[in-house]
Amino acid sequence: MNIQEYIKSYIDSSFSEVLPFPVVDKVFPKDHILHYPGEVEQHVYYLTQGIVEICIVNNEKESILEFIFPDSFFCAYASLLTQLPADTRIQCLTDCTISVLKRYDIMEAYQHSLVSNKLGRYVTEQLYLKRFGREKQLLTMDAQARYLELITKRPEIVEKIPLYKIANYLGIHPESLSRIRKKITS
Amino acid sequence: MNIQEYIKSYIDSSFSEVLPFPVVDKVFPKDHILHYPGEVEQHVYYLTQGIVEICIVNNEKESILEFIFPDSFFCAYASLLTQLPADTRIQCLTDCTISVLKRYDIMEAYQHSLVSNKLGRYVTEQLYLKRFGREKQLLTMDAQARYLELITKRPEIVEKIPLYKIANYLGIHPESLSRIRKKITS
Repeated sequence: MNIQEYIKSYIDSSFSEVLPFPVVDKVFPKDHILHYPGEVEQHVYYLTQGIVEICIVNNEKESILEFIFPDSFFCAYASLLTQLPADTRIQCLTDCTISVLKRYDIMEAYQHSLVSNKLGRYVTEQLYLKRFGREKQLLTMDAQARYLELITKRPEIVEKIPLYKIANYLGIHPESLSRIRKKITS
Repeated sequence: MNIQEYIKSYIDSSFSEVLPFPVVDKVFPKDHILHYPGEVEQHVYYLTQGIVEICIVNNEKESILEFIFPDSFFCAYASLLTQLPADTRIQCLTDCTISVLKRYDIMEAYQHSLVSNKLGRYVTEQLYLKRFGREKQLLTMDAQARYLELITKRPEIVEKIPLYKIANYLGIHPESLSRIRKKITS
């Protein structure tokens, strides 16, 4: 679905206006980097096709924060809000079709547009729920439980994403993930 | 500051209207529990005086998610959004003065009120930044670095909150926290 359809589905079923901010649709090739560590985020992205990876780079250690699937907004959101540099890298794991919004245009729309604020609130709520769920996982679940939750909620992850990336996302060594997978299937 | 002043400070400096939702100010005694694990959240709280603790209760293990200080909105937010039971306990660590908002009234205001949506978006953005910061800490910093960041950002925590609670928040044993504190001060 495109952003208009997203708004109709989640914000306002009667929405039929032109979007209150400009949007440019682009195609990015596999491995393209949308955001480099150290940059200040000036865009919001909406994924219509493909898979995107967001990771934190800290002292040369990379921790995958999340995988983005179609029909989701994403960006280095903390940096977008604070306008401080983000130690985040955002990269296309496949060829991707992405709608690109500029921060400046969104901030303009937030001034006066009710639907923009409803959309911004809703998207931020969804991002909050993702972060909260992840924090709870890290605090209360072991790696096997985290893996089981992941493949239950997102079965396509196992098909489409290399194991070493899934292991990184879970915060464990690839060998530990192999052990967990063997244990589950046996 | 009260909620009107909060809106003036962060949302709209010219705001002078009546709030677009009813608010009831209440005083709760130390140790009062605002939200029990298993409940579905129906309120949003705004703390004007005191300190509140939010923790996750999972298999009888308690993990402190955060301490709330004055001039902040809080509640079992994931449960408020999803209307699923939360394994969260929210408890007053001191006597507290709190403005209480009902979920129903907020949802009503979100339908038509621009300032309510701006406020909801802003508050959710702040909650997102807290969760994201915590996740990053858990993924990339060791306990000593987490403790140093905590006392730098929130020096009043060390004065006002018992050490065993700070250790729980950091995800370490109280003895480990004592060792870290000795190491830092020596």
